[in-house]
Amino acid sequence: MQRIDATPLGDEELQGLDAYWRAANYLSVGQIYLLANPLLKEPLRAEHIKPRLLGHWGTTPGLNLIYAHLNRVIRQRQRQLMYVIGPGHGGPAIVANTWLEGSWTAEYPNTTQDELGMTRLFKQFSFPGGIPSHVAADVPGSINEGGELGYSLSHAYGAAADNPDLVVACVVGDGEAETGPLATSWHSNKFLDPVRDGAVLPILHLNGYKIANPALLARIGDEELTALLQGYGHEPYLVEGSDPATVHQALAAALDVCMDRIDEIQLEARSAPERPPRAAWPMIVLKTPKGWTGPHTVDDQPVEDTWRSHQVPLSGVRTNEDHLRQLESWLRSYRPEELFDEAGRPVERLLELAPGPELRMGSSPHANGGLLTRDLELPPVEEYAVPVKRPGAEDSEPTKVFAAYLRDAFALNADYHNLRLFGPDETESNRLNAVYEVTGKAWLAEERATDEHLAPDGRVLEILSEHTCQGWLEGYLLTGRHGLFSSYEAFVHIVDSMVNQHAKWLKTVNRLDWRRPVPSLNYLLTSHVWRQDHNGFSHQDPGFIDHVVNKKAEVVRVYLPPDANTLLSTMDHCLRTRNYVNVVVAGKQPQPSWLDWESAALHCARGIGVWDFASNDEGDPDVVMACAGDVPTLETMAAVDLLREHLPGLKIRVVNVVDLMRLQDATEHPHGLSDAEFDALFTTDKPVIFAYHGYPWLIHRLMYRRHGHDNLHVRGYIEEGTTTTPFDMVVLNNLDRFHLAMDVIDRVPSLRTRAVTTRQYLADQRVRHHAHVTRYGEDLPEVREWRWPS
Amino acid sequence: MQRIDATPLGDEELQGLDAYWRAANYLSVGQIYLLANPLLKEPLRAEHIKPRLLGHWGTTPGLNLIYAHLNRVIRQRQRQLMYVIGPGHGGPAIVANTWLEGSWTAEYPNTTQDELGMTRLFKQFSFPGGIPSHVAADVPGSINEGGELGYSLSHAYGAAADNPDLVVACVVGDGEAETGPLATSWHSNKFLDPVRDGAVLPILHLNGYKIANPALLARIGDEELTALLQGYGHEPYLVEGSDPATVHQALAAALDVCMDRIDEIQLEARSAPERPPRAAWPMIVLKTPKGWTGPHTVDDQPVEDTWRSHQVPLSGVRTNEDHLRQLESWLRSYRPEELFDEAGRPVERLLELAPGPELRMGSSPHANGGLLTRDLELPPVEEYAVPVKRPGAEDSEPTKVFAAYLRDAFALNADYHNLRLFGPDETESNRLNAVYEVTGKAWLAEERATDEHLAPDGRVLEILSEHTCQGWLEGYLLTGRHGLFSSYEAFVHIVDSMVNQHAKWLKTVNRLDWRRPVPSLNYLLTSHVWRQDHNGFSHQDPGFIDHVVNKKAEVVRVYLPPDANTLLSTMDHCLRTRNYVNVVVAGKQPQPSWLDWESAALHCARGIGVWDFASNDEGDPDVVMACAGDVPTLETMAAVDLLREHLPGLKIRVVNVVDLMRLQDATEHPHGLSDAEFDALFTTDKPVIFAYHGYPWLIHRLMYRRHGHDNLHVRGYIEEGTTTTPFDMVVLNNLDRFHLAMDVIDRVPSLRTRAVTTRQYLADQRVRHHAHVTRYGEDLPEVREWRWPS
Repeated sequence: MQRIDATPLGDEELQGLDAYWRAANYLSVGQIYLLANPLLKEPLRAEHIKPRLLGHWGTTPGLNLIYAHLNRVIRQRQRQLMYVIGPGHGGPAIVANTWLEGSWTAEYPNTTQDELGMTRLFKQFSFPGGIPSHVAADVPGSINEGGELGYSLSHAYGAAADNPDLVVACVVGDGEAETGPLATSWHSNKFLDPVRDGAVLPILHLNGYKIANPALLARIGDEELTALLQGYGHEPYLVEGSDPATVHQALAAALDVCMDRIDEIQLEARSAPERPPRAAWPMIVLKTPKGWTGPHTVDDQPVEDTWRSHQVPLSGVRTNEDHLRQLESWLRSYRPEELFDEAGRPVERLLELAPGPELRMGSSPHANGGLLTRDLELPPVEEYAVPVKRPGAEDSEPTKVFAAYLRDAFALNADYHNLRLFGPDETESNRLNAVYEVTGKAWLAEERATDEHLAPDGRVLEILSEHTCQGWLEGYLLTGRHGLFSSYEAFVHIVDSMVNQHAKWLKTVNRLDWRRPVPSLNYLLTSHVWRQDHNGFSHQDPGFIDHVVNKKAEVVRVYLPPDANTLLSTMDHCLRTRNYVNVVVAGKQPQPSWLDWESAALHCARGIGVWDFASNDEGDPDVVMACAGDVPTLETMAAVDLLREHLPGLKIRVVNVVDLMRLQDATEHPHGLSDAEFDALFTTDKPVIFAYHGYPWLIHRLMYRRHGHDNLHVRGYIEEGTTTTPFDMVVLNNLDRFHLAMDVIDRVPSLRTRAVTTRQYLADQRVRHHAHVTRYGEDLPEVREWRWPS
Repeated sequence: MQRIDATPLGDEELQGLDAYWRAANYLSVGQIYLLANPLLKEPLRAEHIKPRLLGHWGTTPGLNLIYAHLNRVIRQRQRQLMYVIGPGHGGPAIVANTWLEGSWTAEYPNTTQDELGMTRLFKQFSFPGGIPSHVAADVPGSINEGGELGYSLSHAYGAAADNPDLVVACVVGDGEAETGPLATSWHSNKFLDPVRDGAVLPILHLNGYKIANPALLARIGDEELTALLQGYGHEPYLVEGSDPATVHQALAAALDVCMDRIDEIQLEARSAPERPPRAAWPMIVLKTPKGWTGPHTVDDQPVEDTWRSHQVPLSGVRTNEDHLRQLESWLRSYRPEELFDEAGRPVERLLELAPGPELRMGSSPHANGGLLTRDLELPPVEEYAVPVKRPGAEDSEPTKVFAAYLRDAFALNADYHNLRLFGPDETESNRLNAVYEVTGKAWLAEERATDEHLAPDGRVLEILSEHTCQGWLEGYLLTGRHGLFSSYEAFVHIVDSMVNQHAKWLKTVNRLDWRRPVPSLNYLLTSHVWRQDHNGFSHQDPGFIDHVVNKKAEVVRVYLPPDANTLLSTMDHCLRTRNYVNVVVAGKQPQPSWLDWESAALHCARGIGVWDFASNDEGDPDVVMACAGDVPTLETMAAVDLLREHLPGLKIRVVNVVDLMRLQDATEHPHGLSDAEFDALFTTDKPVIFAYHGYPWLIHRLMYRRHGHDNLHVRGYIEEGTTTTPFDMVVLNNLDRFHLAMDVIDRVPSLRTRAVTTRQYLADQRVRHHAHVTRYGEDLPEVREWRWPS
């Protein structure tokens, strides 16, 4: 690791930077401790202190230091910068800095840059009705929720993508650096195009400790650390110390070198006739003490530069006079009287050090991406519809049909650089490869002659890390662009906790008037549970839906289009929405097309509906056969066919569900049907046999309040089946046509005795099919070739 | 990276190794393609071919090569080795090798080492009723499910822990290497004690491609790759080539060097008077072509050494005569007639190359850990119970109480080296620090004077990566030892997909008679949703329970002990169980102790029960107040207190639930109550107000079949609240005592008109409390100091 020996700061600049840093540190400590007396105009007393002391001091001085120095870079170079804060506990730091520079007050006008505003700023922090202790959506300039660690770098790369003039400074905490998602996200630099994209400047902040442990990367020695970072493709610069003046000089020097190097890499790539080889992007390793400038020792225990400074270094200030005095002298050590005038306003000398409104990081429009969102240009979706002369007569591959639409969406938006597709090496497998006709897969690493579709400026991003895909996409969306994550259904659970955090972010955003809506987080889950018959048990899990529906109803949507045209309509809708998490589950294998375009569009607009062509109930069914998902729909239709043949007098109503949230109560979800609408579809007294894509209990959980709930009988995935045939998968989970037809016989009172022979026939068929599969390894032709009758 | 130039293999040994490799390759291809004619005694015809061609050839020859060479190491050194296969798609490889060496037949006696057995071996692969295409629980010698990628290294380290004589060879695929969990798990070497633990030998297999993309680590150049691996703390050796003889020599030489180096590191650490500094453990980078020895070109497209060899290189063999002929010559290229005798038995020369039953990798007892499991010595749990003279009179900190028991469990099992505690830097925060009185935190990286509790042989493992903690623990359990994962509740979602795979593994194991039960995967989730009032919204998520209950009922258990003594009893139970995933959610904050030891033990044994001391229903309640979880129990008790005061005539029954699965139907879960038992507790017609720890819908999902379901009203977490006070958290989610009491009034018909004034009083109290909190930042004393009346 190189150290830059230069001392670029003159005395005045050095003192200015240090004053700015002291001001931010003062405001940070104030947030953690003070309810009143913000300028220490009187001696500190217990009643000035918050009753509950919450916050994280340890990481804060480092974050403040970097912020001050980035301001210098912005002013000197008039460059657009964003600040992504991995050590998310450092909420006080970014709140302090945005208030100092004026961007906090711009979004929250009541929190003025004066004594009253400072009092409000202090009180609101980690206070009921105020703001959380971590960096969060409430904070101007932020796109990275700091509660759950590990995603800062992938967020930063997502933000830099397609923003050629932007530099995203990303502080990586040494705790966060131990997480898996962060550890692999360093490789994002092989997917960043120096021509088309902006730059990411990682700053690994080694303050040495986590909550109660040393940080690993601070304890492997400089040699191994250097190797690791070079191995990640970076050129690391070391800034180390605990003497403020020395560190100021070293950090300013390192930032100068890094920014020059970024300019150089970009200029070379953008002007060279041929693409230069992938550059090692610069980065900084900043080693400063945890809790720097805070209490050195408390109650005879070392605090500064140990894990004890992680949260609140002085915890007894309300009751312990020594602690109170120590806090006061800690606060006064920043010399607030030099930093704020009598009215509490930052002195002019500090205000001048902040960039103007157009460039200050807290006001970056990229961090309030909705400000920059341009609606996608979308092709006329009906033109991609497959012709359906008769329901179920022909097969299509839904994701492949959608791929043509997506390809043209990429083409239409090529000039706007605002659409990307993300996936863990599954785009081809998921049959979305039509997009390669108009764009490639981003790739800056080495290429070989046999490679296909790789391109430094490709708009498809594939890395075998669902975490990185998700992180990139979140960063891309939160800065106002559009995207789609295509994944195998089972493995999207890998990002369960990330989607939690994104959904929580969106819920918070909905309560902040200054944050503009951003494009939705769209999942296309395919290679789903029912068609992982070849990969087996480990690849079979439909539980992501269950996970998502626990989040706030206002931000989650779940769609299960049963065929190609309904998938088209659903995706066309999702790509136009804002601030949602849209989960779409659809198959890639050939399967019957049930609805022509007009019917599909209408069905999707309704979200749920009776399929008249499959029903013969004349308004008064004996049984309702409901289905959600492509395979359950197929089996339901085949069951109806069987029942028609064997029990022709039976009045069956088929209800298909595309929008799963329609099942919920209208009071629980904005898409929920009213009870009257629901009863009109499902009746209140007739048996409902529901064939569902996922775990059957979810349907009960969504419908338990409905009138007819006691008549509801759900079939779905019950964790059975592994490597077998597609039909045997449904047999093993009791979702097959024969079983559904048997369920009808068992539930319709008039059939129980009348249809004994039919029931036995159906049961025998199940056994026959299963036995054939086990012996010959393939489904019987009568299943494979079954068609809905004309 | 170093290349070892030695050629340690004599001609005969080289030819033997190559023959063994060819045999394994032949058997692998046979599994993917053949239903019959396994020895090619007649020309290959379409009817010999499986109807569905499933499997992954690409990674297989590499895995076979390594297996053959590890056999050589075992024979030469008489060393215990295990084989962990990261590229899990390589099922055919390990199946082939275990059959060749005899360990497959040892577990599956019908699959004999002859032509009939070979036919069965081939047919069963990826065939209905057979085995999956990936490495899975069905495979002898395996502890790593190969479906979801990223966990091989952490599993390997978990296996090596406390097994000083074991070397775990771990093949890391270059696809898998891109995942986050794998990327950080390289750092596991800082937690492996060369004295107490065994060794892990990582073999990074760079075959260059994933499904449809190049692999990142194969395209960053040798220099960056070397730096990366050195940065991870390894000394990498390179083996590269496509000429079998050359690669055989190079791999044998590299393995010799690595094994010598492992011996050296261990010997030095184990004999030196002082601990030597952390060594750079050796590892191998193996660069060989993907699909090596398979078809070079198919239909004029390059296949070998490209991503096209990932799955089935010749897909048309049943219908395309050219493909069929190409398959036949591919199979014959291995010269099966030299490898198997007329009866299909591997020739003696091959059999001699396999280690004997006691050392062959497919028969490693470590990989069938239940064989080695020693029951934990557990201290008499009742001795740790807190005295409870009167329910709710005093507070205790449940996890702290449990910590004393856990500490003594560590002490009692110290000589057996079979218990570990895992967590992401939260052991201290979760108040389990009593364990540090008897053991330390494993740490082989640099130490400083201010560090505490670090020790190279510590039994507590802390890294800020839930993935690594979980992977280590899984590896430790599957090799027959005991462990506990303590995590913040919200962030355990990070391992959602890992617990999926572990639960699936356990379900499969329950159907394999040769796999012995292993200790359960125990989660202690604390710092839970209701007491993340200081960390805020991002730290609040109780959905892991929802996630887990979707898994097969036979393997999942969920416990919500309401106080310290019930936590003790629950943990004491969980640590004795086998083959479960036990999820225990309990608080760490001071909270009332409700039950003395005897009552607690009885209550936990029942899993659910009426709390007589809090009930006054005389067998005929007006309302049932049910609760599950510590905070809901507290609020329910306080609500009962309010109701008693304001509506003294009301007959209330309090039901507390520790074992959540008791709520399910007996047909759905082995712990489920019968309907009669359930009705006796909950009645069939009285309102039930259920205060639940997590998302309220889960209770409906568990209870929808019960008679009284329509009278059930559940309160729980509805994604509200962030940084606020503990009581305000429950207020914001309508789980507070006032709201529960209001719910009772709303649901008990006789109260609706009679208790209007009380209802208004309760509603006013909620507002008053919330307003106080928002103004003063702390709860009112009457809430903080509330006690269950004596």
